[in-house]
Amino acid sequence: MESSDYIYGLRAIIEAIREGRPIDKLFIKKDLQGELASELMGLVRANHIVAQRVPLERLNRITRRNHQGAIAMLSAVTYHNLGNLVAQLFEDGILPLVVLLDGITDVRNFGAIARTAECCGVNALIIAERGSVSVGGDAIKTSAGALHTLPVCRERSIAGAVKFLKNSGFRVVAVSEKAQCNYTEADYTVPTALVMGAEDVGISDDVLQLCDTHVAIPMFGHIGSLNVSVAAGVMMYEAVRQRLAADFQAPNA
Amino acid sequence: MESSDYIYGLRAIIEAIREGRPIDKLFIKKDLQGELASELMGLVRANHIVAQRVPLERLNRITRRNHQGAIAMLSAVTYHNLGNLVAQLFEDGILPLVVLLDGITDVRNFGAIARTAECCGVNALIIAERGSVSVGGDAIKTSAGALHTLPVCRERSIAGAVKFLKNSGFRVVAVSEKAQCNYTEADYTVPTALVMGAEDVGISDDVLQLCDTHVAIPMFGHIGSLNVSVAAGVMMYEAVRQRLAADFQAPNA
Repeated sequence: MESSDYIYGLRAIIEAIREGRPIDKLFIKKDLQGELASELMGLVRANHIVAQRVPLERLNRITRRNHQGAIAMLSAVTYHNLGNLVAQLFEDGILPLVVLLDGITDVRNFGAIARTAECCGVNALIIAERGSVSVGGDAIKTSAGALHTLPVCRERSIAGAVKFLKNSGFRVVAVSEKAQCNYTEADYTVPTALVMGAEDVGISDDVLQLCDTHVAIPMFGHIGSLNVSVAAGVMMYEAVRQRLAADFQAPNA
Repeated sequence: MESSDYIYGLRAIIEAIREGRPIDKLFIKKDLQGELASELMGLVRANHIVAQRVPLERLNRITRRNHQGAIAMLSAVTYHNLGNLVAQLFEDGILPLVVLLDGITDVRNFGAIARTAECCGVNALIIAERGSVSVGGDAIKTSAGALHTLPVCRERSIAGAVKFLKNSGFRVVAVSEKAQCNYTEADYTVPTALVMGAEDVGISDDVLQLCDTHVAIPMFGHIGSLNVSVAAGVMMYEAVRQRLAADFQAPNA
């Protein structure tokens, strides 16, 4: 982790929040008390910042400097509000394509997915507050800079985002090895949300149940699973293929 | 690099060659002479092993042990002969799909491509003797084990392999950002060889000129290039899609 990815010390973090710097996650020592700590926690609540109480050792593993019991992981991107973004897409007459990542934690995979999404003209990448990657400098680097322009939304939960998208008229497509339907048989020429699951366990059950369609990428070998960034690329470009074939404009064109 | 990926010392290497262990590349100290060294060089020539004369410092960077001026990088896979493999595919009535990698050096990209190739039922991955990845333990790991079963051919040059494949009735398709033709417009329901280029410079000019067809994956963002393992995945699955749609059997099914 690069030191530019986090700040430490109570006053420094309070200042950063007041200045509106995007904070990915805050780690606070379990039993931290005092006036400044209270002030910080008040700001955390007011700004809906994800905070986690952790043992001192966890903080010491991040930095050996005098962190005073608090370290804030900075986000390298400014998150977008999903509601506003979707409203704007429909207002602009764009046929939207968004990608939801359920529990993807590998920074290189996340960066590669962001890069492909930018190349495809995907309108947003949606991650959850908890159990997702830290969108720091490493993610920016492996995304080849895509994260500087591609809108990223960080929602309370992927399930909540799926419900919102369905209510907004999206078809939500889960990509799962267990699905019966070949991914090319689904129709992506409607407002579409693709859901990709975690590297190890796939999409969580509660999210799977909410999705409109379940599709699988066919496998002919013994391994039976693709790297998630490759699978995401195959899915996004199938959507692009169908839209170009149907003579729709490309998502961002 | 893991120590299981190489052996050192003149006698040990001579023994390994005599036992037929697959050697990826041999590094020999520039001015190494003597009876054993001559014996080794004779075996190297007789077995077409790629050998490179290097300064002592280069060897010392690989291992601090007593290497006696010679280190052999072991290959984690046994390379297949492209001629025999292609003959066998046609004999078995298989509609072949092979992938050539021109100058791809990143082990993680190579491993991910091998994994996708195995999942797609690709019949062979073809790399060049020089300027390619070392197919060692790291490659096996990132391939999720695909390299244990997927045939890999290591040819003198990619240009030579392209010529051979064309003469054997393959359509050789170069994937290049500069191409005019959308990749979905090419026909992959014939014996097909896909050529993917290096991460930085793409496919080399001499190889590009030899290819039958040049196709591009469409881009709608600002970055204008995909990670090569994602691009390879999109290409391989387009071939699979067309073959399934045309009701051909999958490559290895």
